[in-house]
Amino acid sequence: MPFNYSAVDVGLRVVLFAAAVIAVVVMATSKQTEMVPVPGLPTSVRVPYSAEFTDSPAFVYFMAALSTTGLYSIITALASTLLGRKPSYTNTIWLAFALMDVVFVGIVASATGAAGGVAYIGLRGNSHVRWDKICNVYNEFCRHVGTAIAFSLFAAILLVFLTMFSTFALYKKIR
Amino acid sequence: MPFNYSAVDVGLRVVLFAAAVIAVVVMATSKQTEMVPVPGLPTSVRVPYSAEFTDSPAFVYFMAALSTTGLYSIITALASTLLGRKPSYTNTIWLAFALMDVVFVGIVASATGAAGGVAYIGLRGNSHVRWDKICNVYNEFCRHVGTAIAFSLFAAILLVFLTMFSTFALYKKIR
Repeated sequence: MPFNYSAVDVGLRVVLFAAAVIAVVVMATSKQTEMVPVPGLPTSVRVPYSAEFTDSPAFVYFMAALSTTGLYSIITALASTLLGRKPSYTNTIWLAFALMDVVFVGIVASATGAAGGVAYIGLRGNSHVRWDKICNVYNEFCRHVGTAIAFSLFAAILLVFLTMFSTFALYKKIR
Repeated sequence: MPFNYSAVDVGLRVVLFAAAVIAVVVMATSKQTEMVPVPGLPTSVRVPYSAEFTDSPAFVYFMAALSTTGLYSIITALASTLLGRKPSYTNTIWLAFALMDVVFVGIVASATGAAGGVAYIGLRGNSHVRWDKICNVYNEFCRHVGTAIAFSLFAAILLVFLTMFSTFALYKKIR
């Protein structure tokens, strides 16, 4: 039995869809409200204050990028399933997948980087510019953000493999 | 005369090298020292305080990623020049380039995202978590960082095109 490139491709795309959806859902449910002191008033005076992903443009970009990737992955998984059976089309499909996948590598990797860069400041702060860490207060928010970034990193690596896989499938067609 | 894929590939890799080197040099020369007020003392008391790329882990990652990309681009440009003349090797070269280029798409895109996410906070601040903007004071530093990120974004897009180009060169070999 020859190696079934199409079946592996569909499988990887379904895993990519799952990773993107998990990242989006975990980030969307990250809102946390805590009682925090008000600057200029005694520390005993505390008001409820929320942290959510819409507070940071980097996290909003992350959500847009991962949502688009989820949609893309399910569309290409369906296309791969439906068109993979027609041998006459397969070269064009592998080319199209390789060309589109590499664009999504860029989108997901940049989203992971942007969210990761901002989340790291939230975790550790930056004393040089007096940006205080917030994860000591908003621990649940930070746990959600960290989990979403981990799944997004996994999705980016999976997209790299998918691009390599399509390229290799094309390479094997050369006689 | 047939379309010379190899010559275009070498040309794009030289441009990539230039973009990566410019990004690294501009980021490396971003240090700026300003007289800033000390918290807790009257605002008339000011001390010299520097902003440089080593203050932020995201910018350090950016430097590592872009330096590696510069090295990679010049090695592959040389490899493409030397090996491009031997027709028997070209399929393997295009495959190797496509597989390696897509990894660097991920590296450069994530570095651009990380540096961009942090630089945006420097430019606008984030009132939700009381992270003050710093670009009103360290304007020259921010101009350098912004320029480096622009060249890095260009490098990422160029790498996407290089991957597409190698893949397309492979595709054209299928008869």
